[in-house]
Amino acid sequence: MILFDYDKAVHLMERWGVDLLLPHTLLNAGYLADHWKHDLYTSIGAHTTFDKDEPYQLFVGLPRDRKIDPFITCRRASEEGDMYNWGMWIEDRRVWGLDERPRSLNSPLPPVTGEMYATPYEAVAAALKERGLAGASIGVERRYLGVEGYEKLQRLLPEAQLREVLGLFLELRVVKSEEEVRRMRGAAQATQQALEVTVETLQPGMTGLDLESLIGAEHYRAGARHEWIHTQIGPQGIDVVGPNPQEIKTGDVVRIDTGCSYRHYRSDFGLMIAVGEPSKELLQIYGAVRPAMDAVLEALRPGVSARQLFEIGNRILEREGFESYLMYFGHGIGRNVNEEPVLAADSKWVLEENMTMAIELVTVRPALGMVALEDIVVITSDGHEDLSTIGRELHIVEA
Amino acid sequence: MILFDYDKAVHLMERWGVDLLLPHTLLNAGYLADHWKHDLYTSIGAHTTFDKDEPYQLFVGLPRDRKIDPFITCRRASEEGDMYNWGMWIEDRRVWGLDERPRSLNSPLPPVTGEMYATPYEAVAAALKERGLAGASIGVERRYLGVEGYEKLQRLLPEAQLREVLGLFLELRVVKSEEEVRRMRGAAQATQQALEVTVETLQPGMTGLDLESLIGAEHYRAGARHEWIHTQIGPQGIDVVGPNPQEIKTGDVVRIDTGCSYRHYRSDFGLMIAVGEPSKELLQIYGAVRPAMDAVLEALRPGVSARQLFEIGNRILEREGFESYLMYFGHGIGRNVNEEPVLAADSKWVLEENMTMAIELVTVRPALGMVALEDIVVITSDGHEDLSTIGRELHIVEA
Repeated sequence: MILFDYDKAVHLMERWGVDLLLPHTLLNAGYLADHWKHDLYTSIGAHTTFDKDEPYQLFVGLPRDRKIDPFITCRRASEEGDMYNWGMWIEDRRVWGLDERPRSLNSPLPPVTGEMYATPYEAVAAALKERGLAGASIGVERRYLGVEGYEKLQRLLPEAQLREVLGLFLELRVVKSEEEVRRMRGAAQATQQALEVTVETLQPGMTGLDLESLIGAEHYRAGARHEWIHTQIGPQGIDVVGPNPQEIKTGDVVRIDTGCSYRHYRSDFGLMIAVGEPSKELLQIYGAVRPAMDAVLEALRPGVSARQLFEIGNRILEREGFESYLMYFGHGIGRNVNEEPVLAADSKWVLEENMTMAIELVTVRPALGMVALEDIVVITSDGHEDLSTIGRELHIVEA
Repeated sequence: MILFDYDKAVHLMERWGVDLLLPHTLLNAGYLADHWKHDLYTSIGAHTTFDKDEPYQLFVGLPRDRKIDPFITCRRASEEGDMYNWGMWIEDRRVWGLDERPRSLNSPLPPVTGEMYATPYEAVAAALKERGLAGASIGVERRYLGVEGYEKLQRLLPEAQLREVLGLFLELRVVKSEEEVRRMRGAAQATQQALEVTVETLQPGMTGLDLESLIGAEHYRAGARHEWIHTQIGPQGIDVVGPNPQEIKTGDVVRIDTGCSYRHYRSDFGLMIAVGEPSKELLQIYGAVRPAMDAVLEALRPGVSARQLFEIGNRILEREGFESYLMYFGHGIGRNVNEEPVLAADSKWVLEENMTMAIELVTVRPALGMVALEDIVVITSDGHEDLSTIGRELHIVEA
C-alpha cells in the first residue's frame, strides 16, 4: 500500500534539488515501500554472522520523475515472503544474496526471474544505471547509513552525489494518509487497553519490571508490538526511569509512559496513578496541569501554530504557579515516537488536517515525583479526535 | 557488571593491533558496558526530532592498557537513570546533551559534576585526549557507524586511525561468562514456556498473527522481551514466513521459529506441530531428522570441531535419504541470534566450555512444508546442558 503523498514527495524533491530518494531505514525506506524485513525489526545493525561478508541492507529508490519506476532491494529467501505478506506495491524488486531455495508446490510467490546480485549496493547501482540516474543527485540518510555501505555506494556510483535528506522526510511524513491514521488508531487503542488493565492490576509491592511484563503482554494481546516503557516510581522516578526493579509503595505517585507499534505506527502516552489517598500537593498540581492540557486540546485545529499552542498551555500553567518540565507541550507522532510538529516556543509549524500528535504536559516536584498527562489525537478539519483518553486522568488505586 | 573476559580483550587488541576499542552498538558497546538506553532499543537509527541537531549515540571506550580507565558516553537525563538501574561498572561517564533537570530530593544518582559536552563525539575526543590516545589506533564498528558520526569523530581526532574490529568482537563474545549463561537460561526458559502454552492453545482457524500475539504476550509474562517470530503454515510456509495473516487448517504442518531477549541475551528455537493426524511422510521425515539432531547433541563437547558436528548430522540425514535445507546444523547464540561458531562444512571453530548454541536441523518438502528441529544448549566441561527441549519434538494437536 502507498502510505505517502506521491505528489508531495515529487514537490519536495524539486525543492531539495534531488533526482531520487534512496532511504534505507525503517522510518523512511519502510515508509516509502510499506515494507520492513520483520525479523530484523529489533536488531541494531542487523548483524548476523551468516551475513558476515555482506550484511542485510534495505534500499528503496523513488525517482522524482513519476514516469520512472521505483525499485526496492530484496534479500533472497524470507524477505520475498514478507513482501508477499504485506502486499508490496513496488514491482521492480532487485533480489540479492546467495541462498537458493526450493519453492513450495503451491507457492503464492512468482517464479524466480531476473538477475541476482551479490550485494544490495550492486542491485541499487544496476537499477540506477538502467534508469539513467547513475550520475544523479541522490537523497540518502547519511546520518544512519553505515560508513562501509556508503563507501560501497560511492564506489559503484562515482558520478552520483549522495545528499542528506532527513529533513525532507520529516516534512513528507508530517501529514498522515488515511491508512496511517487507521494504524495510529490501532496503536493508540492497544496502549489504552493495556493501561486500563494496569489501573485494575497495579498494587503496592509490584516493581517496574512487573509493569513492563504486564503492559508488554497486554500490547501483544491487543495485536500490537510492545516497544518501550518508563516506570517512574515516587520521587526517584524523576531520575530513575526505564523498566526497573524499584518497588511501588503506598503513597507513591507512579508515572508510566509507554508505547507500542501497530504496523510500524507508534503510540506514546501513559498513566498517572496515586497509590492510596492522593496528597493535597498532588491534587493541587493535577488541578493546574489538567486545565492547561484541556486548553491545548480545545485549541487544536488546522491553521493554529505550534507556537500558539505552546503559549496557550504555558500561560495557564504559569498562572497556577507551575512550570513545564519539558520545552514543549506535545509533539507529532507516527512511524517515530517524536516527529514534527513539536509544540515549542521556537516552532515554525502550523497544524494541518491529519497530523497525529501526542499532547504532553509534564511537571516535576522533587519531593513527589513526576506529574505528567499525555494523550494522542488526530487533527480533523475543524478540531481534533481523541485517539486515547486515559492519559489525562488522575487514577487512584486503593492501597 | 563486567560480562566479558578482560584479559582476552587485551590479548585480542594486541593481535589486532589496536590501542582501544570504541564500539557503539547494542551488540558490542552494550556488551562491554552491560548498558543500553532502554527506550532506544527498537529504534532503527534512534531518530527523534528533539535530537534533530544531535541524535543519540552511545560510545564505550576500553583501552588495551589496563592501567588506563575505560569510559562511556551518557546522554543527560534518562540515560543516567538507566545506568543506575543496571549498575554501570564504568566510572568515567562523559555526560553530553542540553537538558538540565532538577534532581529529586532523595535521588540515588550522584550530584551532577564534571564537564558537559555538546555532542557524544566531543565527549569521546576529550576522554581520548586526557588518556593520551588521541593519535591511537582505534577499533570501531565501521559497518554500523553512520557516515555523519564517523566524519565528526575523524574531524575531532585527526591523528587517530579508525579501524573495523567486528571480527574481534565475534571472537571476544564467543565464549560466555557465568552471568551471560545465566541470562541465556532466562531467555531459553521464557521461550520454552511460551511454546508450551502454544501447544495447548493452537487450533485450526488461528492465523500467524494470532500466534505472534500469543507468543509475544507469553514472552513478556515470563519477564523477557519478545523479539521476532516466523509462523510458517503448511507448504506455503516454505516461502511465506514472518508473522502473517495465513490461517491454520487441519492437516497443516506448522513451523514456528521465535526468539525473545532476557537482559539482551537471545533465544532462538521453535516448534513443529502437526495439526490433526500426522501424515506418513511427516513421520518418515521426523524419523530421519530427529536421530541426526540427537547425534549432533550427543557429540557436543569441548574440543570437537564445528566441521565434525556438521558432518555427523549430515551423514545420518543423507543415509535416510534427506538433505539439509540450511548450510549448517546450528550456530552460536548470545547477544545476537546468529553468532559464531556456525556448525558448517567450512568452519574453523572448535567448541569450548561455555559456548551457547542453537542446534538446528531443517528440511523442506514442497508438498508438506518445513520440518525443523531446534533447541539451545550450553557446552559444559564434558558435554552439554540443554537450555530448551521442546524444539526437538514432533507435537500433535488434535483437530
